Amino acid sequence: MKKILILNGPNLNRLGKREPNIYGSETLADLQASLEKLASQLACEIAFKQSNHEGEIIDLIHKAEDREYAGLIINPGAFTHYSYAIRDAIASVSLPTIEVHISNVHAREPFRHQSVISPVTIGQIVGLGTKGYKLALLSLVKEDF
Amino acid sequence: MKKILILNGPNLNRLGKREPNIYGSETLADLQASLEKLASQLACEIAFKQSNHEGEIIDLIHKAEDREYAGLIINPGAFTHYSYAIRDAIASVSLPTIEVHISNVHAREPFRHQSVISPVTIGQIVGLGTKGYKLALLSLVKEDF
Amino acid sequence: MKKILILNGPNLNRLGKREPNIYGSETLADLQASLEKLASQLACEIAFKQSNHEGEIIDLIHKAEDREYAGLIINPGAFTHYSYAIRDAIASVSLPTIEVHISNVHAREPFRHQSVISPVTIGQIVGLGTKGYKLALLSLVKEDF
Amino acid sequence: MKKILILNGPNLNRLGKREPNIYGSETLADLQASLEKLASQLACEIAFKQSNHEGEIIDLIHKAEDREYAGLIINPGAFTHYSYAIRDAIASVSLPTIEVHISNVHAREPFRHQSVISPVTIGQIVGLGTKGYKLALLSLVKEDF
Amino acid sequence: MKKILILNGPNLNRLGKREPNIYGSETLADLQASLEKLASQLACEIAFKQSNHEGEIIDLIHKAEDREYAGLIINPGAFTHYSYAIRDAIASVSLPTIEVHISNVHAREPFRHQSVISPVTIGQIVGLGTKGYKLALLSLVKEDF
Amino acid sequence: MKKILILNGPNLNRLGKREPNIYGSETLADLQASLEKLASQLACEIAFKQSNHEGEIIDLIHKAEDREYAGLIINPGAFTHYSYAIRDAIASVSLPTIEVHISNVHAREPFRHQSVISPVTIGQIVGLGTKGYKLALLSLVKEDF
Amino acid sequence: MKKILILNGPNLNRLGKREPNIYGSETLADLQASLEKLASQLACEIAFKQSNHEGEIIDLIHKAEDREYAGLIINPGAFTHYSYAIRDAIASVSLPTIEVHISNVHAREPFRHQSVISPVTIGQIVGLGTKGYKLALLSLVKEDF
Amino acid sequence: MKKILILNGPNLNRLGKREPNIYGSETLADLQASLEKLASQLACEIAFKQSNHEGEIIDLIHKAEDREYAGLIINPGAFTHYSYAIRDAIASVSLPTIEVHISNVHAREPFRHQSVISPVTIGQIVGLGTKGYKLALLSLVKEDF
Amino acid sequence: MKKILILNGPNLNRLGKREPNIYGSETLADLQASLEKLASQLACEIAFKQSNHEGEIIDLIHKAEDREYAGLIINPGAFTHYSYAIRDAIASVSLPTIEVHISNVHAREPFRHQSVISPVTIGQIVGLGTKGYKLALLSLVKEDF
Amino acid sequence: MKKILILNGPNLNRLGKREPNIYGSETLADLQASLEKLASQLACEIAFKQSNHEGEIIDLIHKAEDREYAGLIINPGAFTHYSYAIRDAIASVSLPTIEVHISNVHAREPFRHQSVISPVTIGQIVGLGTKGYKLALLSLVKEDF
Amino acid sequence: MKKILILNGPNLNRLGKREPNIYGSETLADLQASLEKLASQLACEIAFKQSNHEGEIIDLIHKAEDREYAGLIINPGAFTHYSYAIRDAIASVSLPTIEVHISNVHAREPFRHQSVISPVTIGQIVGLGTKGYKLALLSLVKEDF
Amino acid sequence: MKKILILNGPNLNRLGKREPNIYGSETLADLQASLEKLASQLACEIAFKQSNHEGEIIDLIHKAEDREYAGLIINPGAFTHYSYAIRDAIASVSLPTIEVHISNVHAREPFRHQSVISPVTIGQIVGLGTKGYKLALLSLVKEDF
Repeated sequence: MKKILILNGPNLNRLGKREPNIYGSETLADLQASLEKLASQLACEIAFKQSNHEGEIIDLIHKAEDREYAGLIINPGAFTHYSYAIRDAIASVSLPTIEVHISNVHAREPFRHQSVISPVTIGQIVGLGTKGYKLALLSLVKEDF
Repeated sequence: MKKILILNGPNLNRLGKREPNIYGSETLADLQASLEKLASQLACEIAFKQSNHEGEIIDLIHKAEDREYAGLIINPGAFTHYSYAIRDAIASVSLPTIEVHISNVHAREPFRHQSVISPVTIGQIVGLGTKGYKLALLSLVKEDF
Repeated sequence: MKKILILNGPNLNRLGKREPNIYGSETLADLQASLEKLASQLACEIAFKQSNHEGEIIDLIHKAEDREYAGLIINPGAFTHYSYAIRDAIASVSLPTIEVHISNVHAREPFRHQSVISPVTIGQIVGLGTKGYKLALLSLVKEDF
Repeated sequence: MKKILILNGPNLNRLGKREPNIYGSETLADLQASLEKLASQLACEIAFKQSNHEGEIIDLIHKAEDREYAGLIINPGAFTHYSYAIRDAIASVSLPTIEVHISNVHAREPFRHQSVISPVTIGQIVGLGTKGYKLALLSLVKEDF
Repeated sequence: MKKILILNGPNLNRLGKREPNIYGSETLADLQASLEKLASQLACEIAFKQSNHEGEIIDLIHKAEDREYAGLIINPGAFTHYSYAIRDAIASVSLPTIEVHISNVHAREPFRHQSVISPVTIGQIVGLGTKGYKLALLSLVKEDF
Repeated sequence: MKKILILNGPNLNRLGKREPNIYGSETLADLQASLEKLASQLACEIAFKQSNHEGEIIDLIHKAEDREYAGLIINPGAFTHYSYAIRDAIASVSLPTIEVHISNVHAREPFRHQSVISPVTIGQIVGLGTKGYKLALLSLVKEDF
Repeated sequence: MKKILILNGPNLNRLGKREPNIYGSETLADLQASLEKLASQLACEIAFKQSNHEGEIIDLIHKAEDREYAGLIINPGAFTHYSYAIRDAIASVSLPTIEVHISNVHAREPFRHQSVISPVTIGQIVGLGTKGYKLALLSLVKEDF
Repeated sequence: MKKILILNGPNLNRLGKREPNIYGSETLADLQASLEKLASQLACEIAFKQSNHEGEIIDLIHKAEDREYAGLIINPGAFTHYSYAIRDAIASVSLPTIEVHISNVHAREPFRHQSVISPVTIGQIVGLGTKGYKLALLSLVKEDF
Repeated sequence: MKKILILNGPNLNRLGKREPNIYGSETLADLQASLEKLASQLACEIAFKQSNHEGEIIDLIHKAEDREYAGLIINPGAFTHYSYAIRDAIASVSLPTIEVHISNVHAREPFRHQSVISPVTIGQIVGLGTKGYKLALLSLVKEDF
Repeated sequence: MKKILILNGPNLNRLGKREPNIYGSETLADLQASLEKLASQLACEIAFKQSNHEGEIIDLIHKAEDREYAGLIINPGAFTHYSYAIRDAIASVSLPTIEVHISNVHAREPFRHQSVISPVTIGQIVGLGTKGYKLALLSLVKEDF
Repeated sequence: MKKILILNGPNLNRLGKREPNIYGSETLADLQASLEKLASQLACEIAFKQSNHEGEIIDLIHKAEDREYAGLIINPGAFTHYSYAIRDAIASVSLPTIEVHISNVHAREPFRHQSVISPVTIGQIVGLGTKGYKLALLSLVKEDF
Repeated sequence: MKKILILNGPNLNRLGKREPNIYGSETLADLQASLEKLASQLACEIAFKQSNHEGEIIDLIHKAEDREYAGLIINPGAFTHYSYAIRDAIASVSLPTIEVHISNVHAREPFRHQSVISPVTIGQIVGLGTKGYKLALLSLVKEDF
């Protein structure tokens, strides 16, 4: 049974409370529940984490490799734009990784247009709301989709 | 029954023949067939087009609006990086639009990192191969996914 | 009797329908009618064209030279910002050319602030709505104005 | 009866004497006379000023607002390229403003390509010689033109 | 017998008429005739095309591959500076390609100094007038030159 | 008794009338009155000036030095962004200087993010409304605050 | 009774020991004491924290919102220049925030001139030593000051 | 008898008092006296002016032309770096102009490295102290030196 | 007996496992052992740490100062390129610091070419593999080497 | 009999030994022999030189002018990218000059994309191997080719 | 008796022959003669050199220091724009140095606007023709001028 | 017995005399002596050279390859920042190369932060004084260090 790690970066713990015009009113717990439901439909297992600490995110990525996860879905939040350390963490493991952004970062402030993470992922899903996590899960788990 | 327009930009007619290490060996016809199969599962209709002509792509976007399409999936190929005219065409219609790229453009030449199209779409799916088209279709058609 | 070519670039066929807060509700047909009325007052003749195809616009500029037009009024739409080919087409003919923009492009997105066309025109009229076309016609036709 | 303020920035007092290959041989007095003639035809009133002093130009803009002028035509000369103070003066009043340049600044030195004034005007007329002032007057005064 | 495609981009149909101080007085027909003469001396065959339409140029490049041409000589005109679509078309075929410019683009306006096409060609011949086409033909056809 | 010069740059004479959503509805006279009140509480004296003329502001700074002022509070308005002459005036005197901005310039247009004045002041108070002037006065006058 | 959170970023624990020519000889404990004294004069309550951990600072901002603080004073230290995560944390809560810097960052190394935090605060106090914290407190607590 | 105008820009009235480590202890009056002495040796006449007002400097340049001065020596002070209006004033007259800077601006802050005035002068003398004015006078007056 | 702190930044815990073509197959434990051996030869003491947490690295630097270490060897990993907080931590202590990179960062991605740490160290050793740590230790400990 | 100078810049003495995947296995002596053979076919004379010394190359260009050479073929090697001195040397003589590069510099490192030499040559031949020298010779010598 | 070294960089040996519209028709020998005449009037001694070799110029600067020259006048030609080695040579000696340019480099190509030499000289004389050398000599030798 | 070439670039002949606050008081001869002593301890041979001539340095690198040196230690002095020719010389040979700088170039002027040489070396030792040469020698000669 495939295990997928889903990592949420800084401020995503405030989902539903934070700028709802941009991020919607669904909370992180709602999202976790709905992803667990999808996971069980897809017969896979997910671990769902959030942290405001860059170092913790790096530690979790390393452990995912050691515990033989099959893939990583990451919404790095604002770390997207400067955390070369997370980039190197992803490059240092062999987990196929998809980067997800809830809002369309390319229609927002210029600093949000650049991701230092993207070059070491296999792909990105951007702007499709929390649906993006589900599409990412589908993509990682169902090879023949 | 929802109708979705799927537009492919320049050089995508060479899919399967062109740089298979980057774009895979599936042809555009293969892709069309597999998207039509998914569309029928999702009970929607698709129109699937390719053109090397910027003007033709603009014309098709305008017509999709007039013919009451419910959404647009576009892989603008190299037009991604400079066609402000296609950007304006998308902005001039009310079709929810998803931009798709087969390869991870953010891991390739610097000029491929910038999309002039992204700010007027609702989102992008990048680097997930031709699977990206299917995820985009799913996203546009199944609201409760 | 002086003949003036009036060329409209991509997406101007959607005038009146497209982003009316920016471009107003007058259609391209309305504009043509009102320019033809002015032309007859000024005792000149106009040809009024629109195309979403860069190549077609270039062809029309070449033909205008061959057919001895006395001037060119061009609203290059989004081609303003990157079509060095249209710039070269204007430079390759001897038609005095005025560039017109309906909206004040300098108050919009940064990419709209640069025109690659302007250096080869005699002048520009920007932000004065469709009135800009009329002022351009007046300027080209009435030398002693 | 509508009153329009026409403001000329630095060095325009030397019009006719200064670089005639660029600016022509008409003097500022000639221009004033010909604009007054047009104003009387259009049944409006103009005030026509020139100053080499940035502060004076700002004072005049403030006063125009207080004296209930209906519009402002400004050729800011070299202040175009750096006077954020004049820009703010225009933004601080409610006068519809048209920026005029006699020469085609976009075909000259790179520093002349950027106007810090344009974003707060309604539009610009560039490169059409002193005719530009007349077109601007026409545009401000004749709404149904 | 080797077949070589010779493609001319926008505004080259005006060769001889357009800015003769830059491009000389030889017409495109003159050039074609003189290249056909050289081709017959070199015992090869040429197809000689011109188009102002980017899409048409892309179509011709694809067809040249399908029809087993042995090489491509392209003067992309102004498309040189922004047509990533033509660049991708050349990269998508296996034709050895030489880029030719009649004038010395590096001694002209800054925008002409950058070619987005060059990285996917085998080489460039620049500034040697229409002689550049002949040298390119010689280079592609005579391996032991 | 300490004397402090408070200088207001261009367009601040329009405070209360100008863009009240950005600058509030208090007038410059209101501000002067309220600062004089605070000054008397702090047992110091203030001179309160406004000018739209860069040269006048420089003259006032020089005179403040000659008349033995103890400090300078300056809101340079738009001169903030380009008046190296005012910068040099401040550097040429020995008055401790605090730069004040009513609005949060760092949340506005990019050109407002750079101050050429800041490096020669002792500090800045930005975005706290007209309260910023009072805090500056307090800071200059009460050393043991 | 209003509660204000005062947050100090990395290396501020070394205040008094670290580069005293830039930061003075007052320690962080001295500063806390003096702010608590001022708070009691102003009849408000402060929480005073320091952390070298970006994640901890984000956690504290979130909690301040949950615990109904009335405002935030933050000296983000070096995080000022790159922590988009702290910026997003501030944007994700509704606490009026003032950014404080002890030294005049605009007179130091170029990297210190840019704050990624400023656009989401209401204002900044820079270069006025530890007095800046007091002015910020006064500004947040005394509305009629 | 040749007349030469010597113009001093903003803050030069503080020469001798201002930053003596950079500008020396000679005052502007000293400099004027010593230049008048040299002028009488060279049998020419000088007018020596200083202004902190950009507009006044422009007015003086225009008048120098009208009064048939034979040359202009200008130390534009901080206007050097942004006053395109003074640049245009010099370009609008036919006076041979030499730009003088007392200090070596190229060894100071980066903003002092660029002169917008230099391209319209015949030359510059930089960093040689007030001696630079004398060398400039010599150069303008003694053709066979 | 001199004590030297050796600090390893993010992802260095994966040394030997991570991209061995770039970083080699030696693990961090191997490196520690071999440095301890060298330390005992040099009659000094080392503390050898690794952390993925920026804040922890800052804390360790502060403590090293308090515990009277004689020097610091730091391989900041990806923090090299953006952690101004670590830079300030080093600047806030008086430990002579050498920056070490295992791979030749100047032959890798452009973002790795810039170190925000280097200006506050005494020097750097780059690209010499783990040997770099030993050379750094030798350099700090043996003054007469 | 026409004489042509062929100049080779730094490191071209290592041709055949140096990075053969980029520059091929032909040596400089081989190239000289084959160019002398072509020269005798074309009834012209060549002088063939190589130097690693910028000054020597400049001296040779000056002498070529004095000795009445009819043209210059130069492969400036790495001097291409920074030797404004060689550029000025070419500009200071009246020899028609063609710049040759063996490899396609536009497909290599970014610094190789810019030539400071190109603007003063009549043209360039790039990427066609050592064949480029022969085409250049043909072009300079056979006017009617 | 003061000795002054006058150094001329690359291509100045062609003075009089090279682009006379820019550099005039006086030869380097003429210039040397006229400087020697001035030197004898000023009772000083000059050594006058020219070299196209950067290394030779550096050697000469070092020797001038060793031979106790009192000053250096250098026209570095094109080395002005990139020879950090000559800059360092000047910085490594204690000779007061004046940089001279015959033409007004600030009115020519952009690359000529930057001098890497200027920051280590005491000053520059630019655009005053060969008179600049004389003024430099006067300035170095006559302290009380 | 391994032979190592140690090359010193421009102005290093002035070591000990030149800016001793930056480079120390040890002369180049002192350095050579101390390196020869170390070499004999390490049972290797060194050749120690200095030149102010870029071409000479290139020649020496080529010869080192031909004479079967085992490695190269180079302090390119100011050539570090622009000599692509030396870069290419190193790339054209197979000598493992270490770049050494005596001072910490990253704490000095911005132009010293970039090395065009670094990408083709195996590593760099920067800022450790002349000790850097010794560490480099140790690194090249003792593989098991």
